[in-house]
Amino acid sequence: MTDLSTQPWDIGDDDHPHEECGVVGIWGSSDAAALTALGLHALQHRGQEAAGIVSLAGQGQFHAHKGRGLVGDNFGDAHVIAGLPGHAALGHNRYATTGETALRNVQPLYADFEFGGFAVAHNGNLTNAHQLKRALVRRGCLFQSTTDSEVFIHLIAISLYTTVMDRLIDALKQVQGAYSLVALHNGALIGARDPLGVRPLVLGKLATGGYVLASETCALDIIGADMVRDVEPGEIIMIDDSGMKSIRPFARAQSRFCIFEYIYFARPDSVVEGTPVYDTRKRIGAELARESGVTADVIVPVPDSGVPAAMGYAAEAGIPFELGIIRNHYVGRTFIEPTDQIRHLGVKLKHSANRSMIEGKRVVLVDDSIVRGTTSRKIVEMVRQAGATEVHMRISSPPTTHSCFYGIDTPERSKLLAAKHDIAEMAQIIGADSLAFISLDGLYRALGKTGRDANAPAYCDACFTGDYAIPLTDSQDNSERPLSLLQAANR
Amino acid sequence: MTDLSTQPWDIGDDDHPHEECGVVGIWGSSDAAALTALGLHALQHRGQEAAGIVSLAGQGQFHAHKGRGLVGDNFGDAHVIAGLPGHAALGHNRYATTGETALRNVQPLYADFEFGGFAVAHNGNLTNAHQLKRALVRRGCLFQSTTDSEVFIHLIAISLYTTVMDRLIDALKQVQGAYSLVALHNGALIGARDPLGVRPLVLGKLATGGYVLASETCALDIIGADMVRDVEPGEIIMIDDSGMKSIRPFARAQSRFCIFEYIYFARPDSVVEGTPVYDTRKRIGAELARESGVTADVIVPVPDSGVPAAMGYAAEAGIPFELGIIRNHYVGRTFIEPTDQIRHLGVKLKHSANRSMIEGKRVVLVDDSIVRGTTSRKIVEMVRQAGATEVHMRISSPPTTHSCFYGIDTPERSKLLAAKHDIAEMAQIIGADSLAFISLDGLYRALGKTGRDANAPAYCDACFTGDYAIPLTDSQDNSERPLSLLQAANR
Amino acid sequence: MTDLSTQPWDIGDDDHPHEECGVVGIWGSSDAAALTALGLHALQHRGQEAAGIVSLAGQGQFHAHKGRGLVGDNFGDAHVIAGLPGHAALGHNRYATTGETALRNVQPLYADFEFGGFAVAHNGNLTNAHQLKRALVRRGCLFQSTTDSEVFIHLIAISLYTTVMDRLIDALKQVQGAYSLVALHNGALIGARDPLGVRPLVLGKLATGGYVLASETCALDIIGADMVRDVEPGEIIMIDDSGMKSIRPFARAQSRFCIFEYIYFARPDSVVEGTPVYDTRKRIGAELARESGVTADVIVPVPDSGVPAAMGYAAEAGIPFELGIIRNHYVGRTFIEPTDQIRHLGVKLKHSANRSMIEGKRVVLVDDSIVRGTTSRKIVEMVRQAGATEVHMRISSPPTTHSCFYGIDTPERSKLLAAKHDIAEMAQIIGADSLAFISLDGLYRALGKTGRDANAPAYCDACFTGDYAIPLTDSQDNSERPLSLLQAANR
Amino acid sequence: MTDLSTQPWDIGDDDHPHEECGVVGIWGSSDAAALTALGLHALQHRGQEAAGIVSLAGQGQFHAHKGRGLVGDNFGDAHVIAGLPGHAALGHNRYATTGETALRNVQPLYADFEFGGFAVAHNGNLTNAHQLKRALVRRGCLFQSTTDSEVFIHLIAISLYTTVMDRLIDALKQVQGAYSLVALHNGALIGARDPLGVRPLVLGKLATGGYVLASETCALDIIGADMVRDVEPGEIIMIDDSGMKSIRPFARAQSRFCIFEYIYFARPDSVVEGTPVYDTRKRIGAELARESGVTADVIVPVPDSGVPAAMGYAAEAGIPFELGIIRNHYVGRTFIEPTDQIRHLGVKLKHSANRSMIEGKRVVLVDDSIVRGTTSRKIVEMVRQAGATEVHMRISSPPTTHSCFYGIDTPERSKLLAAKHDIAEMAQIIGADSLAFISLDGLYRALGKTGRDANAPAYCDACFTGDYAIPLTDSQDNSERPLSLLQAANR
Repeated sequence: MTDLSTQPWDIGDDDHPHEECGVVGIWGSSDAAALTALGLHALQHRGQEAAGIVSLAGQGQFHAHKGRGLVGDNFGDAHVIAGLPGHAALGHNRYATTGETALRNVQPLYADFEFGGFAVAHNGNLTNAHQLKRALVRRGCLFQSTTDSEVFIHLIAISLYTTVMDRLIDALKQVQGAYSLVALHNGALIGARDPLGVRPLVLGKLATGGYVLASETCALDIIGADMVRDVEPGEIIMIDDSGMKSIRPFARAQSRFCIFEYIYFARPDSVVEGTPVYDTRKRIGAELARESGVTADVIVPVPDSGVPAAMGYAAEAGIPFELGIIRNHYVGRTFIEPTDQIRHLGVKLKHSANRSMIEGKRVVLVDDSIVRGTTSRKIVEMVRQAGATEVHMRISSPPTTHSCFYGIDTPERSKLLAAKHDIAEMAQIIGADSLAFISLDGLYRALGKTGRDANAPAYCDACFTGDYAIPLTDSQDNSERPLSLLQAANR
Repeated sequence: MTDLSTQPWDIGDDDHPHEECGVVGIWGSSDAAALTALGLHALQHRGQEAAGIVSLAGQGQFHAHKGRGLVGDNFGDAHVIAGLPGHAALGHNRYATTGETALRNVQPLYADFEFGGFAVAHNGNLTNAHQLKRALVRRGCLFQSTTDSEVFIHLIAISLYTTVMDRLIDALKQVQGAYSLVALHNGALIGARDPLGVRPLVLGKLATGGYVLASETCALDIIGADMVRDVEPGEIIMIDDSGMKSIRPFARAQSRFCIFEYIYFARPDSVVEGTPVYDTRKRIGAELARESGVTADVIVPVPDSGVPAAMGYAAEAGIPFELGIIRNHYVGRTFIEPTDQIRHLGVKLKHSANRSMIEGKRVVLVDDSIVRGTTSRKIVEMVRQAGATEVHMRISSPPTTHSCFYGIDTPERSKLLAAKHDIAEMAQIIGADSLAFISLDGLYRALGKTGRDANAPAYCDACFTGDYAIPLTDSQDNSERPLSLLQAANR
Repeated sequence: MTDLSTQPWDIGDDDHPHEECGVVGIWGSSDAAALTALGLHALQHRGQEAAGIVSLAGQGQFHAHKGRGLVGDNFGDAHVIAGLPGHAALGHNRYATTGETALRNVQPLYADFEFGGFAVAHNGNLTNAHQLKRALVRRGCLFQSTTDSEVFIHLIAISLYTTVMDRLIDALKQVQGAYSLVALHNGALIGARDPLGVRPLVLGKLATGGYVLASETCALDIIGADMVRDVEPGEIIMIDDSGMKSIRPFARAQSRFCIFEYIYFARPDSVVEGTPVYDTRKRIGAELARESGVTADVIVPVPDSGVPAAMGYAAEAGIPFELGIIRNHYVGRTFIEPTDQIRHLGVKLKHSANRSMIEGKRVVLVDDSIVRGTTSRKIVEMVRQAGATEVHMRISSPPTTHSCFYGIDTPERSKLLAAKHDIAEMAQIIGADSLAFISLDGLYRALGKTGRDANAPAYCDACFTGDYAIPLTDSQDNSERPLSLLQAANR
Repeated sequence: MTDLSTQPWDIGDDDHPHEECGVVGIWGSSDAAALTALGLHALQHRGQEAAGIVSLAGQGQFHAHKGRGLVGDNFGDAHVIAGLPGHAALGHNRYATTGETALRNVQPLYADFEFGGFAVAHNGNLTNAHQLKRALVRRGCLFQSTTDSEVFIHLIAISLYTTVMDRLIDALKQVQGAYSLVALHNGALIGARDPLGVRPLVLGKLATGGYVLASETCALDIIGADMVRDVEPGEIIMIDDSGMKSIRPFARAQSRFCIFEYIYFARPDSVVEGTPVYDTRKRIGAELARESGVTADVIVPVPDSGVPAAMGYAAEAGIPFELGIIRNHYVGRTFIEPTDQIRHLGVKLKHSANRSMIEGKRVVLVDDSIVRGTTSRKIVEMVRQAGATEVHMRISSPPTTHSCFYGIDTPERSKLLAAKHDIAEMAQIIGADSLAFISLDGLYRALGKTGRDANAPAYCDACFTGDYAIPLTDSQDNSERPLSLLQAANR
């Protein structure tokens, strides 16, 4: 039963956009489920709410295990892995945007088709899912979950084509959006990226033979797999016992990889498009220092994500880098709804000031983004209370002025601080002596471009520019009644 | 996670056929969910494994709660009932034939249709469910459960008719089997019985206005509702705010109500087809005494179900009725897998002999049926060990020679004692000095008929005769591959 | 954590006194824990709230398992039994009078003494436990539970005697009350009954050798043990590998066995003091019919406990016995807090009227006792609503006018209906056309006496007479402050 | 029930000594329990296995809540805090050395004394606990837990003194060991440190009035309390409504504060003996660089504890500091028992190499200690696999050659790498090109001393020197039989 009285600790406090999901697929290993679990563990930063694995054993027999919570909590037991036999497996980490997650929404989704079992998991968001769903329901399709993945499954089920691959292509041609998906049926493991390649997907090779598909290279590293290459935008990879095939059902288009993966989402030790993320973040920090230098005594990162940029900033600025803010990693699932009196203390459950590094100093705080601004305000206040004489905030991304509709959980636009205020106002709101964001061109420079080419931008930067490269069909169509929703009083 | 080490106590011991489910529907009460829960509680004997309720509140908003275990365990809390608001509700008790019940199989099932939400629950079994399911999957329908109810839902979803009622009739015309179903959509509560009326369904009226549909009258009694009448075979009842309508989409046929409801399934205080079940069972016992009298000192029922027949037998035979066997009602969910040494003790967890009523006496045991014979053998042995000088077994049903395919869980035919042995052999196997079953004609006489009319039998008695009035389509068609099954490592 | 919102179903409804506990001890079987679990299962009627077993294996190694709920729910799993190895074991069923049971209060209690481990469990109540506890605390003893058993343990711990048996006798001489206890240490299994023998304890012999001690003979029957004899009032039984020894540390006194064990507590198939309980209850019913006959059409027991008395009554009165009230055994742990509207329906979750046996008839209801009268009133009302023309209530015990302090949970005196009202008033309160209780002398006659000898009553009948044979020390001494109580926010 | 199949992830992997516990006490705030919970949250690094809080409300009424897991998981719910009313509270974080924690072992412990309720919690270890326990049991005391705290409680209970404070002093004079304890009774909050002050305890003042006692200053910071001072070695602090009193029952001795608190245990933002821990660690790193410099390209900390020392090392050495190892903070409660094949992969669940910072470089790894060496070997191997050309390990503590008996969980001596091998061997075992530890004198220098004064060392450094300042009574006395232990088959 839902415990209505608990309060997820992060709500209203961890002021970051949130990635929606990581995926892993393995073909050709007798340890497929265990390797998938390890890969999901390495991708845990992309979704901590629930995890699921589907494995495929002989004679097309599928096995599944799903659970709320971390990968280690659900797949750490050898008995669970033993219940997922087979030479292929598919896994998914979920980040959910709201409320309780019904277990039926935890991916991978599975269906019995005429041609056998089929499982699919994806990272991303379809921008015409509601439109498609209404059409499918009108046709007699019954939806059991509220995930986009189920739209894929119904489109495949009703396709008039006969082979699985033709049905999948038929389905992909009907959807709009940003997605990286992995699918598994009796004959093959399949990976696909949307035509603009917004969400990441990489292909690796196991040391023991066999292939792996995963959202980031860190999932390859943990299982000792070698990176082969990124799956390309619009490409479908089919892996079966005869090897790997590439299929390109879409016309070539300018790639628009999500620029925020560099700034915040990807793990620092992952390699994205040939460049280590950690390096990139240090270069962004250095660029930020060049653009928005300030006289100060110490550079302090907002942990943990601001650390590499702060190091780059400090090195470029020649100012000491210190851990002036300590993060408490033992936050637990929930925490206190404080009384008014305690709330006035401005209690910091997740961060605390390292007073000895701050007291009497001019501090530059480096963080990766400001979304609502709530956390930034608390952090600045905490640093001042610890005795900083000046607090300057530097942000390693441009102002977040627009919501993401491509698979990242951001607040609606009206809640984005940068959508309503200019930088001077924002500085005042968060209480900083000065505030600066990296420029859009500066960000592109740090990524090795000469700047942003407005005619053919190299990345999806819609959250900073409002330049939405994929149509927002559902968002612009509220004409039809939404599907009714069953309210479950419990799981 | 499934605990593989526990052993449901009843397996191999409670040697009865098992009812598969009870249903309740309420329309027109602000306490709809609470009344439904009470009705399900009164029908708990029809299924103890899981229970579910779906309620309908304003603007077509549906709410659901399901759980494993007893009604009282799942719906005893006022908070749960408060989470099921609305003026109408639908409930279901489930008895499952095997293994763990996935929560997704617990009825009522719910679907979002183009025309709004729709919930359905049924008691019974479709005999062409697999055939229909294969056809539906071929067409692109995706199944999420393994229950027959989902076949109803898909047939309704893909129907080309426009009104809910036309779609439902369209669906019912395609299914074969024995079923009593209740369904709920935004505009109405619906009840339907199969054309032969094999499974029961009664209509009642609430004291406060509003209607109730339920499997037995005992569910009406607990909520103070008045019995209106049985829903008739092949009839569809539609209840909405304007009242009750009867729809008869099927041609009239000879009714074939399940005769085993009289013998064992129905609660003794329920009234079936105008006759109290308790009275009927006493009349069956008396008829049995007339047919198969024996000189004895005491008539002892096998509790609890054999009690009324034993009372009728004792009164007719003029032999004292005594509770010579005591039943332990505190059996709990599971019990001991005994060591060999303990198993040799012939441990009786559920029944114990009341030695003072048995020792030195000629005992007639009265039970309602013999399925596998395992319990009968244990009971006879226990009574002998308690000192009975003779043990005569009298059964208030004819020999169970055939399996049921119409919603009752019976073993396959090869496991039915009476399918393989004549009565003398059966007596020897269970260790009784004599054994007699009521005759088929005697049973019909006890039910007020002159005997069984072989040309037009008044009841479904297939378990005694093999006369299957509804085609057994799925059982006779094993040509196509079964659907693959997802093996879930946990819930 | 305590779920404050659930409501134990029985509260205010099952209007019986409640037994506080059953005990079992085994010495000399390699299946000691399994046999103990089976014995506890047979004694489940004496306490359903929690169960515990302590076993003793080689080198004085003790093992324990305790849990809330039924024996079968906690000890049904072979893994649990495997975790309780050894040749001796001790078990306890607990009935708790109030609130949640802390697991630390579930018996057997265990302590590490200088001489080794020691476990004890008892059925009964000490009447000077608080007085002793205060003295022990003053001396520096720390109490961890709120059970009387812990007083035994501290008294043994601080005794200046050296042998376990001397310490135990030292302890028993300091306590007042009604108790049957079983204890286990490295060298022996011990059983003891209080000097008046108020609570039951029987000695049996296992077929495979070894001994068993248990509250009732039904616990011997389930494991195939032979009854040896009742442990006598004031007797201590010591069982070790050399056999059984009897020790009598107390002067002989007139035995005062609890008369309510005959009327209600003991299982009908148990043999108490040489007489089967079922027989006794039928004789009580017959005596009641002779004393308080009434013209009627049908005798109806209030199930389940009223059945044998009703059979005796019916046979003596020559009026048909019918099951006019059906009991629902599937009540579950909790049930609905009904809305006002539903409460007005007078919902009967546990009993329902079998209308066909009642309508238009003059009904005699036979029950075993009236405590608060709440259930009786509901039952009478239900029977009237089912169409009875007259309802006469006959009770197979005298009026319950006093509380029990000897191990039975009864309400305080002010809540006992018979303490405040004469029989005519009680009849009016419960709504019966007539009401009669068996007389005290009639009850003694049914038990084979010539009547009650006021100078030396053969039984403890304090609940009917206020004749308390054991001093009520604690009840009469409220002078000192009670011990403070730790309020645990969770288990 | 214990799930035997899961494997705590950290076992054999996180190769650190482990702190045993953190304590917090509050007196004089209406938010006492909430503030205690926040303080425990700040001290979560000192124990993550279980947490408990006891509060004291009016009329000496105590309330308690305990649970396994993190503070936030157990005390995050406002309902739990509401169940702990009062103006004073006591809390404890537990780290357990082995197996499952029985809830009865979770502190604070509570007892009902003659003078009222009493709760106590401590950080540390008594070195004569077993000896005292045997004597207490011989006297008739019954132990319910296996914690040292219960020895305190029994000693207080049996003391012949009359006031609580006298009894406490009486008890403290009988115990040997390292402890910081906080206790709560109706009249006062008490804090005490052992005579050598081995374990930390600080006194703070709440902004709203009232006092706080806590293991570290970070617990004061989170609730906005001002540091007053360290509780002094051998000092007892008594706080009641009239203010704070200091009692010194012990003769003054040379303080021997645990030097490992500086190196590893204390949170970097805590201030210990007037010096910020973060600063101290940087100074230790700098000293280490001076002592054991090496030509290299990059200084890489082993996260998270090695970070400040690595920063100090890097600054002193003039070599770039980089995050060459990434720590995965989402490890969960348990993780995979890998198959052999996976184990050979050398899977790193907690750390991964940041290849771009390591490949082709000469790397200096900085860690705080080597205990068994298992993690160091894995880390070195991982860094080599990531392409380091040289790997030099630098340790910010001297070699750990002896076990701790003063409240820190270290392996027995035979499992300490430095107890069996010289530094050259250790380097070979962990696979490093070079290995160096800070010298003992160097460590003292970094702490502001001129070096270690062997005649009067300023700190407890027994783990590096074997100089045990407090007698190890229990460890040297194995003559008597240990107390038997009850083996609980479940919780």
